[in-house]
Amino acid sequence: MVRCAILGAKGYTGCELIKILYKHPDVEMTFLGSRDEGVTALSAIVPQIADDAGLCVEQIDVEKIVALSDVVFLALPHTKSLEYVKKFYEAGKVVIDLSSDYRFKNKTTYETWYKVPHPDGELLKKAVYGLPELNREKIKEAQIIANPGCYPTAVVLGLLPLLEKRLVDRDTIVADAKSGVSGAGKKLAAHTQFSELAENFYAYKVGAHQHMPEMIDVLQTADASFTKLLFVPHLLPLNRGILASLYARVRSGVSKEAIIDAFKAKYHAEPFVRLKENGSFPVLKDVQYTNFCDIGIHVDPASDAVIVISAIDNLLKGASGQAVQNMNIRFGLDERAGLR
Amino acid sequence: MVRCAILGAKGYTGCELIKILYKHPDVEMTFLGSRDEGVTALSAIVPQIADDAGLCVEQIDVEKIVALSDVVFLALPHTKSLEYVKKFYEAGKVVIDLSSDYRFKNKTTYETWYKVPHPDGELLKKAVYGLPELNREKIKEAQIIANPGCYPTAVVLGLLPLLEKRLVDRDTIVADAKSGVSGAGKKLAAHTQFSELAENFYAYKVGAHQHMPEMIDVLQTADASFTKLLFVPHLLPLNRGILASLYARVRSGVSKEAIIDAFKAKYHAEPFVRLKENGSFPVLKDVQYTNFCDIGIHVDPASDAVIVISAIDNLLKGASGQAVQNMNIRFGLDERAGLR
Amino acid sequence: MVRCAILGAKGYTGCELIKILYKHPDVEMTFLGSRDEGVTALSAIVPQIADDAGLCVEQIDVEKIVALSDVVFLALPHTKSLEYVKKFYEAGKVVIDLSSDYRFKNKTTYETWYKVPHPDGELLKKAVYGLPELNREKIKEAQIIANPGCYPTAVVLGLLPLLEKRLVDRDTIVADAKSGVSGAGKKLAAHTQFSELAENFYAYKVGAHQHMPEMIDVLQTADASFTKLLFVPHLLPLNRGILASLYARVRSGVSKEAIIDAFKAKYHAEPFVRLKENGSFPVLKDVQYTNFCDIGIHVDPASDAVIVISAIDNLLKGASGQAVQNMNIRFGLDERAGLR
Amino acid sequence: MVRCAILGAKGYTGCELIKILYKHPDVEMTFLGSRDEGVTALSAIVPQIADDAGLCVEQIDVEKIVALSDVVFLALPHTKSLEYVKKFYEAGKVVIDLSSDYRFKNKTTYETWYKVPHPDGELLKKAVYGLPELNREKIKEAQIIANPGCYPTAVVLGLLPLLEKRLVDRDTIVADAKSGVSGAGKKLAAHTQFSELAENFYAYKVGAHQHMPEMIDVLQTADASFTKLLFVPHLLPLNRGILASLYARVRSGVSKEAIIDAFKAKYHAEPFVRLKENGSFPVLKDVQYTNFCDIGIHVDPASDAVIVISAIDNLLKGASGQAVQNMNIRFGLDERAGLR
Repeated sequence: MVRCAILGAKGYTGCELIKILYKHPDVEMTFLGSRDEGVTALSAIVPQIADDAGLCVEQIDVEKIVALSDVVFLALPHTKSLEYVKKFYEAGKVVIDLSSDYRFKNKTTYETWYKVPHPDGELLKKAVYGLPELNREKIKEAQIIANPGCYPTAVVLGLLPLLEKRLVDRDTIVADAKSGVSGAGKKLAAHTQFSELAENFYAYKVGAHQHMPEMIDVLQTADASFTKLLFVPHLLPLNRGILASLYARVRSGVSKEAIIDAFKAKYHAEPFVRLKENGSFPVLKDVQYTNFCDIGIHVDPASDAVIVISAIDNLLKGASGQAVQNMNIRFGLDERAGLR
Repeated sequence: MVRCAILGAKGYTGCELIKILYKHPDVEMTFLGSRDEGVTALSAIVPQIADDAGLCVEQIDVEKIVALSDVVFLALPHTKSLEYVKKFYEAGKVVIDLSSDYRFKNKTTYETWYKVPHPDGELLKKAVYGLPELNREKIKEAQIIANPGCYPTAVVLGLLPLLEKRLVDRDTIVADAKSGVSGAGKKLAAHTQFSELAENFYAYKVGAHQHMPEMIDVLQTADASFTKLLFVPHLLPLNRGILASLYARVRSGVSKEAIIDAFKAKYHAEPFVRLKENGSFPVLKDVQYTNFCDIGIHVDPASDAVIVISAIDNLLKGASGQAVQNMNIRFGLDERAGLR
Repeated sequence: MVRCAILGAKGYTGCELIKILYKHPDVEMTFLGSRDEGVTALSAIVPQIADDAGLCVEQIDVEKIVALSDVVFLALPHTKSLEYVKKFYEAGKVVIDLSSDYRFKNKTTYETWYKVPHPDGELLKKAVYGLPELNREKIKEAQIIANPGCYPTAVVLGLLPLLEKRLVDRDTIVADAKSGVSGAGKKLAAHTQFSELAENFYAYKVGAHQHMPEMIDVLQTADASFTKLLFVPHLLPLNRGILASLYARVRSGVSKEAIIDAFKAKYHAEPFVRLKENGSFPVLKDVQYTNFCDIGIHVDPASDAVIVISAIDNLLKGASGQAVQNMNIRFGLDERAGLR
Repeated sequence: MVRCAILGAKGYTGCELIKILYKHPDVEMTFLGSRDEGVTALSAIVPQIADDAGLCVEQIDVEKIVALSDVVFLALPHTKSLEYVKKFYEAGKVVIDLSSDYRFKNKTTYETWYKVPHPDGELLKKAVYGLPELNREKIKEAQIIANPGCYPTAVVLGLLPLLEKRLVDRDTIVADAKSGVSGAGKKLAAHTQFSELAENFYAYKVGAHQHMPEMIDVLQTADASFTKLLFVPHLLPLNRGILASLYARVRSGVSKEAIIDAFKAKYHAEPFVRLKENGSFPVLKDVQYTNFCDIGIHVDPASDAVIVISAIDNLLKGASGQAVQNMNIRFGLDERAGLR
């Protein structure tokens, strides 16, 4: 049994981790931590499960966590993981960080977008970006796994085959993404009040979302010249899921078949990527509460274009599900364990 | 008082017409018609208004309508207006057709997309496309006004200044549009059942929506070489409104100021187009239940791109509100009458 | 023209007042006040209307309001009207208070439920409870009108005929009420975040809601012995409307006809109460955005019971619409002006 | 391994059964049947699970089902089980029927409410009403288990302790219940279209819902004189869950403690009933996607009343979850298997 600690157990991604690990056949949750003071019953945090696990959420205690766990999941807000990763790394633990704090190779990019100094330039280089479809082999040996952001997971999986095989004009790519509100986390805000969001819809952080540099960074591993991503996130009046509509102009001479084949070659053996066939496209409902990324492809000769639509559950494939997938890979478990 | 008849009074756009005209100071509703048999109390159709108007919905009776009305609104499904427009035209009535039946100059385009022969090639040429921001002067004299589709209204208003002034590369335009479900009309369908749509979201008719040729047609009045529109509609889990996110790569040498100025020049005197300023963008809630089209613009130097976001209420500026705006223009009334 | 001031213009009920009065033919809005500092454009508060009224929301200035207005609407949170009512009363203004501060005849009841001392025992006695269906004649002469709470409006209108005519056993009444979330006002709260409320539903303040003593108080005007109201409010995952399901056991010998007749006699001449007929019952959608209270009645011989279902828009008949109705009555205007 | 067949695999309750049994450690799904023709991939029916189970939905084939299964779940519409129960019964299979067809002891009650003759008066007497909290011992030996309706599950669990111990005046009971729309099944209907239901709420089948006689029937096992249930169901604009607010006047001399104790005594050992404590009440979200029934109790001395609020997931504890709970009991498995 892999012994798991979760820090940030009260947030949305922490709660999803608890729900997954609670049913996971090969692990044991040994510590649930929060930055809050005091002790909270598990049933108050995740009322959908009965508290017969005998677990409660307590204050973070690094020493205790080191003693009790093999892997530490950090489900903390951005910039808050900086305090903990090094400690667990030096204690020899596997760290799976769901924040953005260790996703960038380049310290400066992080500091520009997150407005805080990064103390661990060296560890950044040791961290592996935890997208299994891109980095499975590296994840098997990683000690720090930087779990991808939710938008980057949906967008990168939809664009990777196109860029790796140079099928599209890299300067024409548009990523129009729509997310449910759980992506915003649990903190109170006027724009996430029911009265404001129900029956409403809008774009936000137009041209200024912190996931844009993350996507560019990762996609440059496929095409180093890629820089001009046009990305706009939108907020949907629903709880869970991201659907990304991706557009690009096809390079001259590239056939529809070449495009379809590139996706099939890339993903046919992936346990959590499903290609839609026969002109059907992803539907958010089909991926909610699952770890799947569904992808549909349309090649449009009239406009020399390809349209790729990808959909995930932002809290699962876009966060906690992918974190468990990474743990499964790292510890040699069935990659699908706990995620079916 | 302008005497108004409405055909298709029981559908969503018919009901919205009734609500607007009920409060309009300068008109009188003289006939409410339906293709159904029998007589229905107005209060059963629009329960939000009390039936002190003494009106009811009855079967369509062309002769009676001709006797009683100055203007006939056709709020019928696509292909159903073909039966009526000529009759009212020949009787000298002003016809405002909310269907797509008279929107195309080219009979063949219509027939290709709507799969029915068009009987009135001549009348098609006489019809004026009822987008006041494009055709106000022609509308003043038109006898047949083809009221624009909901998606085309949102998309065309967002793209017109860019194409008219040749500010963007016309072959890079992407229109990613999202609509509330009232756009689908009142007919029963599995995908519009609450259980299927609530908490759900998806793209539909990818590369195959009948509003695409309409948009291309209209935008060619601004740039005759424009053909490669990439358009994907999506269905939102909410009732009213369309938000369109429009993307294009800026032509070399075009400044941010030139783009902003083009929008200001085009729309500053328009009563129903509002430009968002200072980096703010449209929010669906702000235009719901109004005839406004809100537009926000972002120029992104890093990707040589411009992002335009436009939002309307699909049943008002995208249908019945715009129809009344057209009537106001045609009959010399205050353009905002009944629509404030 | 009646000159109107609104205090609390930024809250939900304040905004609804602005929307109604903006279209009201016989009034002029002369002052929009807020307890916040600074000046805010009207279009930032009510984006659905264009700001051609030249109005903005400014800090409350009693002297200026006295100079500019005939009637002052107080759309402030409970306990905040206490500071203003006396001042406007003494300046000879008509005051329509949407808070609960002047709804009780008995100072002690107020103080028990709202946990603050009430400074104006004398004025409480002068205030008239502004339910037109109960107190129309008194409202015509009132200088202080205490606008009813949203739940009391729906519940009292459904129970009045039963209690006035002694048709039911007064000790068996149950009022199970369900409200949209706008009833909770605009303040941030965890339970009104979209993630918490969408797809959710629950009872709250079980046996402890502050509208319970208000209902008992008002219903005692119909039956002084009435004390045992069983009232539970619930929160619906939608924005607007209250639907109250009211249950009582019928007194022996009372016929179905007697019950129906009591409702007809009470409400047939009321402009804003509509009785549903032929076994149909109120639907929230039919009263949203209207000032109507719809009422349906079912007499169930098998259980010796009557079921009354009433529905209102909590922000209109339950707050701002009723406030305008009261103003219309008080100033001798058409009672329906601005509310059709 | 218990071999399970499901009939009606494409409906809501059928799909929920598949999802539960797919993860259940002690069973094997051997036949998925539909009344439709043809063969459908499981992934088309339950897109949230990948189709590695090698299962598909095929036409009902009684002989094949008899050969392959130990237990047959009938997730068919009401009146459609009548055709199958006897066949599987005579073949010695355990039948768990989710329809209402075998819930009544009295053939006439069924025929009055469901408007069809019942062919199996004898089998009706052999069927056990599958509410484990009432009939666990009988379920252990039953060959036909009539799985309770969704409303009856929520209402009966909330009222049983009160009636069994004679704590309330049996003629004052009111059950005001609210259900999500999945309770209405998958068939197309105007009132369950998104446009009609979103932002809407209303009572339906007032005094005429077919679950009323079922509740009275079951509750008479606790108190044979009970007949006057006042029950009104309402439709919530959400997918899953039932919350029932139950009211009764307490019998003279019954203390608050006696009421609380009755609930504790009844349910303290139940694996799927949770009593809320300390003045807290059920929240639909806490029971969604679970098999729990949460119950909160408020005793109100001012009105001599008790208020009980119970909440379930209508598709789980109200249908498919309870069916699996019954199977677990019947086959001697851990009662919680597959349901945690």
